[in-house]
Amino acid sequence: MNDDLVLTNSSGAHAKKAGEFGLMSILMLQNHMTKIITNQKNKKFVSLFSNPIAGKTIVLVGTGSLGSSMAKLVSPLGANIIGVNRKGKSVEGCSKVITIDKIDTVLSDADFLYLAVPETPETKNLISKERLNMLKPTCGIVNIGRQSVMDYDELAEKLKRSEIAGAILDVFSHEPLNKNSTLWDIPNLVITPHVSSDDDGNYVELTLDIFIKNLKLFIENKDLSNQVDKKLGY
Amino acid sequence: MNDDLVLTNSSGAHAKKAGEFGLMSILMLQNHMTKIITNQKNKKFVSLFSNPIAGKTIVLVGTGSLGSSMAKLVSPLGANIIGVNRKGKSVEGCSKVITIDKIDTVLSDADFLYLAVPETPETKNLISKERLNMLKPTCGIVNIGRQSVMDYDELAEKLKRSEIAGAILDVFSHEPLNKNSTLWDIPNLVITPHVSSDDDGNYVELTLDIFIKNLKLFIENKDLSNQVDKKLGY
Repeated sequence: MNDDLVLTNSSGAHAKKAGEFGLMSILMLQNHMTKIITNQKNKKFVSLFSNPIAGKTIVLVGTGSLGSSMAKLVSPLGANIIGVNRKGKSVEGCSKVITIDKIDTVLSDADFLYLAVPETPETKNLISKERLNMLKPTCGIVNIGRQSVMDYDELAEKLKRSEIAGAILDVFSHEPLNKNSTLWDIPNLVITPHVSSDDDGNYVELTLDIFIKNLKLFIENKDLSNQVDKKLGY
Repeated sequence: MNDDLVLTNSSGAHAKKAGEFGLMSILMLQNHMTKIITNQKNKKFVSLFSNPIAGKTIVLVGTGSLGSSMAKLVSPLGANIIGVNRKGKSVEGCSKVITIDKIDTVLSDADFLYLAVPETPETKNLISKERLNMLKPTCGIVNIGRQSVMDYDELAEKLKRSEIAGAILDVFSHEPLNKNSTLWDIPNLVITPHVSSDDDGNYVELTLDIFIKNLKLFIENKDLSNQVDKKLGY
């Protein structure tokens, strides 16, 4: 990539919508909705009661605008959110934040694992088979980042064996997900079609807002916001 | 019923859990989840984008502890909640409250209709075929009250014809819902097994708290809380 090019992205445009999707998906897992939806498919009426979410632990991997927008909305309900990011920088709504190399120390505490990281050399296969095995069988998982961050084959096997309580996946390496994919029918798995963060109809406008603000800063020779770090890749 | 008996109920024990179920179910409808779940069943990956919920109108029928707990959690997201109750008494989280006899004046405004009323002579068939026809085709419906409050057969027909966007039903006249029920397979309908308000494991304790407080008041010859109005039936 040309070194004298300055790249900026539209990070932040998605935050409000992504926060509400995050709040919804965490509450769906807390309310056993992935199981209830599977039961409906099988015409089974099984009362699966649950508690309010206060006191539950969410491990949030990736605290950029998408991940942190979930934390902001879920933390007022009393959930305990542990953030995981590159530098351990504190995040609104998180009770503590650890660096990504320490992730193994918190996985066994997770009632929910929320993945909101881009694909980078650092995040590829981050949630490997070994790390999936560190989670409690009552743990629920949401992924709004990239498929490559987690071992979907192993996740599917664990869902079939009830070694993970449920999952909501919004991202897939090949989209639209193929009709022949075995993922469609995995029990306690909800597939959402990459909708966690697109704000219908407003995305272009929100993105242009960010771009035009930056263009003004660029003309005035000031520091730009949303600048891409070419080494990190985002 | 013996006139000199004083009846109290456990209203309030369910409020926290019911509020989170309400928040979840409204966000599920806003995020097109009933359609997305139906699409998954048919192995269809269709991007159905949505907006944040701010500015959407929720008509909340029944503002007792279950209904009002939803309003308290959803209103901070910027939704406009119109309460409907017997006396038009104001409710935290509602922008306005109307009496139940005026319900026809607000149904066509509803992006969401949230039903949280007990079965009484006044609420039986309240959401009749005629009133379902007043709703926008983009409207989503949640019922955590009683089946008798709404015409489920007509709702099912309207869901099949896409004249209602989606519904989440938690209550049924006969529970468990029979395997042969045609409701299981209605498109854009999510069936939850009467779980909206039971707080797993804590219900007995929360109920006893209310009862023991009342017993103390009774012994001290003071006014009881949660007293049942025998004429109203709740």
